[in-house]
Amino acid sequence: MGFGENLKAHRTRAGLSQEALGRSCRLHRTEISLLERGERDPRLSTIVRLARCLEVPPAALLDEVEDA
Amino acid sequence: MGFGENLKAHRTRAGLSQEALGRSCRLHRTEISLLERGERDPRLSTIVRLARCLEVPPAALLDEVEDA
Repeated sequence: MGFGENLKAHRTRAGLSQEALGRSCRLHRTEISLLERGERDPRLSTIVRLARCLEVPPAALLDEVEDA
Repeated sequence: MGFGENLKAHRTRAGLSQEALGRSCRLHRTEISLLERGERDPRLSTIVRLARCLEVPPAALLDEVEDA
């Protein structure tokens, strides 16, 4: 389990496309895509920002994360 | 509650000095200090590395974090 999988799971649960999440978080859709595929090493502030846009606690995005 | 406070709480619970944690994580003691004071915006990989050194799940370091 990785951060990217958590991000994708919470995004789809919220019924948001990568583009819609990007818009609400002011991140580019391709950045969301890279994050979901584990191809970015996001900073804490980005993790917190994404969590806020998804209305979940930041810790939820690290749930069961073991590696990065 | 912030990441830094969580980091400090878990470090002291583990009975480690900033220097000892830094040694086991290969981070400088001053970096640990800056992280605990909220003066750094760590990347996910650093959060995971610190959690591993502290033998806690990465999500534990984001517990109750709301801002960053």
